[in-house]
Amino acid sequence: MGKSFIFGHKNPDTDTICSALVYADVKTRLGFEVEPVRLGEINGETQFALDYFQVEAPRFVEAVAGEVDEVILVDHNERQQSVSDLDQVKITEVIDHHRIANFETSDPLYFRAEPVGCTATILKKIYHEKGLEIEQKMAGLMLSAIISDSLLFKSPTCTDEDIEAAKELAAIAGVDAEKYGMDMLKAGADISGKSAEELLSLDAKEFSMGSAKVEIAQVNAVGVEDVLVRKAEIEAALEQVVADKGLDLFLFVVTDILTNDSTAIAVGQAAHAVEQAFNVKLEAKSAILQGVVSRKKQIVPPLTTALSK
Amino acid sequence: MGKSFIFGHKNPDTDTICSALVYADVKTRLGFEVEPVRLGEINGETQFALDYFQVEAPRFVEAVAGEVDEVILVDHNERQQSVSDLDQVKITEVIDHHRIANFETSDPLYFRAEPVGCTATILKKIYHEKGLEIEQKMAGLMLSAIISDSLLFKSPTCTDEDIEAAKELAAIAGVDAEKYGMDMLKAGADISGKSAEELLSLDAKEFSMGSAKVEIAQVNAVGVEDVLVRKAEIEAALEQVVADKGLDLFLFVVTDILTNDSTAIAVGQAAHAVEQAFNVKLEAKSAILQGVVSRKKQIVPPLTTALSK
Repeated sequence: MGKSFIFGHKNPDTDTICSALVYADVKTRLGFEVEPVRLGEINGETQFALDYFQVEAPRFVEAVAGEVDEVILVDHNERQQSVSDLDQVKITEVIDHHRIANFETSDPLYFRAEPVGCTATILKKIYHEKGLEIEQKMAGLMLSAIISDSLLFKSPTCTDEDIEAAKELAAIAGVDAEKYGMDMLKAGADISGKSAEELLSLDAKEFSMGSAKVEIAQVNAVGVEDVLVRKAEIEAALEQVVADKGLDLFLFVVTDILTNDSTAIAVGQAAHAVEQAFNVKLEAKSAILQGVVSRKKQIVPPLTTALSK
Repeated sequence: MGKSFIFGHKNPDTDTICSALVYADVKTRLGFEVEPVRLGEINGETQFALDYFQVEAPRFVEAVAGEVDEVILVDHNERQQSVSDLDQVKITEVIDHHRIANFETSDPLYFRAEPVGCTATILKKIYHEKGLEIEQKMAGLMLSAIISDSLLFKSPTCTDEDIEAAKELAAIAGVDAEKYGMDMLKAGADISGKSAEELLSLDAKEFSMGSAKVEIAQVNAVGVEDVLVRKAEIEAALEQVVADKGLDLFLFVVTDILTNDSTAIAVGQAAHAVEQAFNVKLEAKSAILQGVVSRKKQIVPPLTTALSK
């Protein structure tokens, strides 16, 4: 058995990057030959966490089949969110906390999904189950992932298990979760100097909903004004992606990390589904989604329902 | 949150029935309101185990949505192997040891699949993880499931974990695994008095392979002669099912529990794929598959490959 790659989804966020690094630590200490890799650019928030805990980013790869026969997926399972040549390798494990869709294997595998707020919360349990001690750097990465995915414990995806895990990890990492967390989120919310195209691709995911091809991108911001003054530019970029990829809907969501509300911009022939899904009226293609911070729990399910009718 | 049903696949085998009963014990003791149910008739082998350990069979149901909103699947995940109205309820958990396919949710869930020989082996671990003691009856059911799925530890699907679990469970159940196991397998291998139609449906599963619709049924026997003297009758029944369901292939596999070889009868326009998959020549629609005892590990993967070309 040769080396396996461990990686999260395209357009990597902090949970995807940290979980690949952390699960590689687990597997390595259990005697497996693995390498964490990434499928895209490190964002500002993740870079803050890596710098703070002095951990190197995983190596970037475009494809995997040329280097390994087997892979381990973390923080995703849907094929369209994964590496393009996934069908040419064998998936031996998945550790995830998302819905399951567009996933199929010909052989049994180790698949562990739990409805918690963050992949790292599951990884923390695995350290305990395997009797492995958690080192400071790895604790810091897992804590960063939980803070990122839960928007500092404010997201409805955040469970008691995530909060308990974060407490334990903050103690090992030697940081104050609230203070470190807000600094990290602010580092990620700094969108100055980013082009509209960059904003749309920072944390974008594709979904099949009913027969519709949907992309949803989310950025955090400290106040949404900095983003909204560039609305025309962003709309043009959205139109371009919709045309290029043949999307039925591109939903761009700006989440204010201070108020925990989001502003959405919807482009595509299926944009009306957004009104139905969230009981809002789009004005100039935009609407405020009050209290909505979680793509997974508050956006994907109602939009899937609206588009499956 | 109302009651949840826990059930395994259609045409239930010993692992499916026992895992539903056992996981219901786990969930009940953890404070959840659950009921184990079954989607089909109890076979002779399973009945032997239930009688031996004095456990009532789960209630039979045709559909679930009229009674519950949420369900827990054990020992399967593929939609076509599950209850017909699965799309009308929410799947909150899956505990399984098969490949993952034709499975999709709109929300995150608890999904635990491990590449072990038997669902009950995973359930045994869950007792330990939750700090629950295993009672004698439940140990007996889990042991029966492992013996059934592993054909008394002879199947290539059987892992060290299954063997370890079986040892521990036999001690709690107070039986000799080898002796009890052979008695149980023989009870299941008694096919006298069964019609050809019954033989085909005892342990039948449907699969999508490439674009082909495939059904694979397996029966155990002590010596295959009792089955093969009825070959003409069985072939006619196979032809009938292929026509009724529009199958591309129906593969009927008789596994000798003493020699651990199987005899296969293949009917349908895609029967040639069997020759390719197992490197055998079908004579009068039949071939011996030497050393083949596991549908999951030795039949489904090569047949999927052959039919996906």
